[in-house]
Amino acid sequence: MTARSAPDRLLSVLAAFDHAHPALSLTDISRRAGLTLTTAHRLVSALTEWGALERDASGTYHVGLRLWEVAALAPRGLALRQAALPYLEDLYEATHENVQLAVRDGSEVVYTEWLSGHSAVGVRIRVGARWPLHVTGVGLALLAHSPPEVQEAYCEAPLASCTDHTLTDPVRLRRVLAEVRRTGVAVSSRQVTDDALSVAAAVHGADGTVVAAVSVVVPYADARVPVLVPAVRLAARGISRALGWQPG
Amino acid sequence: MTARSAPDRLLSVLAAFDHAHPALSLTDISRRAGLTLTTAHRLVSALTEWGALERDASGTYHVGLRLWEVAALAPRGLALRQAALPYLEDLYEATHENVQLAVRDGSEVVYTEWLSGHSAVGVRIRVGARWPLHVTGVGLALLAHSPPEVQEAYCEAPLASCTDHTLTDPVRLRRVLAEVRRTGVAVSSRQVTDDALSVAAAVHGADGTVVAAVSVVVPYADARVPVLVPAVRLAARGISRALGWQPG
Repeated sequence: MTARSAPDRLLSVLAAFDHAHPALSLTDISRRAGLTLTTAHRLVSALTEWGALERDASGTYHVGLRLWEVAALAPRGLALRQAALPYLEDLYEATHENVQLAVRDGSEVVYTEWLSGHSAVGVRIRVGARWPLHVTGVGLALLAHSPPEVQEAYCEAPLASCTDHTLTDPVRLRRVLAEVRRTGVAVSSRQVTDDALSVAAAVHGADGTVVAAVSVVVPYADARVPVLVPAVRLAARGISRALGWQPG
Repeated sequence: MTARSAPDRLLSVLAAFDHAHPALSLTDISRRAGLTLTTAHRLVSALTEWGALERDASGTYHVGLRLWEVAALAPRGLALRQAALPYLEDLYEATHENVQLAVRDGSEVVYTEWLSGHSAVGVRIRVGARWPLHVTGVGLALLAHSPPEVQEAYCEAPLASCTDHTLTDPVRLRRVLAEVRRTGVAVSSRQVTDDALSVAAAVHGADGTVVAAVSVVVPYADARVPVLVPAVRLAARGISRALGWQPG
């Protein structure tokens, strides 16, 4: 085993947990973190005592409530969400469709919030899910407002394809991004799955930079884009104002 | 400085962040964590590289998106929330009042979710807020279904008071808890503030134990408790079923 720093070893225990592995035994953790059982035991005990992990009656470990409380302070996690939630709820009530909030992390979009009532149909995107930027509506809205060098690097790299309708031509993608900047709205039509369409708009922070994007996902067959556009734009502007943005 | 373990030092950096201090300079972190500037710098760098912290343009540190993603796996955090959210939304649409989800952590209730649209009035409880169990509706619902030894220890300790109406008499509290178990519903009337009332019900997990509580908070003056009770009970049963609970 190579020499690893103490922080690196402790963080590797946290990184052992993911959506496919939300509950792990001590043996699982030691294997997934690349640690001896003794080291894993010592680190897991420290994390459990602090509340970053919780041990259930069967001896299985889960992510703990205290880590969740600290993480709730993330400006791009729950803090953004707290400003956005009333507007997301209004958008949900106005459309009764799936509503999402997402941020950019490098070349991916990360969904930090979704609202989906029983009456909504179509794609259900889980919180924490990641997608390439050019595929989804929120991703296009975020990419269109990224620094030029980020957009250039993105368009020069290979563009992953999910359906026959996914934008994989960089020339077309550049044109779409210019159009998103012009209209303020991004539409992803059957780019993720063959039966879904999303309409997204960018959310601005107090300094005017784009910090997030909001979208509605609807079944492609019944999508009434002209009806959705103003609702999504209004929600994005409402959240931006709540974050301290002033138009113009 | 006393000898502290490596995990303890790293976790003290995370613990430096709280609701009153969501953004910290390196100097703040070193002081709040009780670490030398050199050690703080080394640990903050490791946490930032991993994504547990993020550094903004001004050099200030915030909790990072990656920590938020790991924390989203907490069964009592976002995982519970994902099962509960459709029912919380239904409850919100039915009442248009503040809706909460909470869990017990020792002798406190921790709010893990709230929904509050623009039309809702009254108390706004932030995610991650903590209250003594006997004060709030969700707290009473959770305490009433705690193991008997937890209830006994709680009733024997001094009972904090928030208003003139807060339950501070252990004999009365025991009677209220028995009533909550009998009816399945807890009402906290003007116990937190003089103008608010909450109606709460317990949420059961797959094994039948109580894992959370759901509530509606309304202004005391217009509170129509008989109307709220069935809605809150239905939401609690819906979430319980979504978690795998089977009645009877």
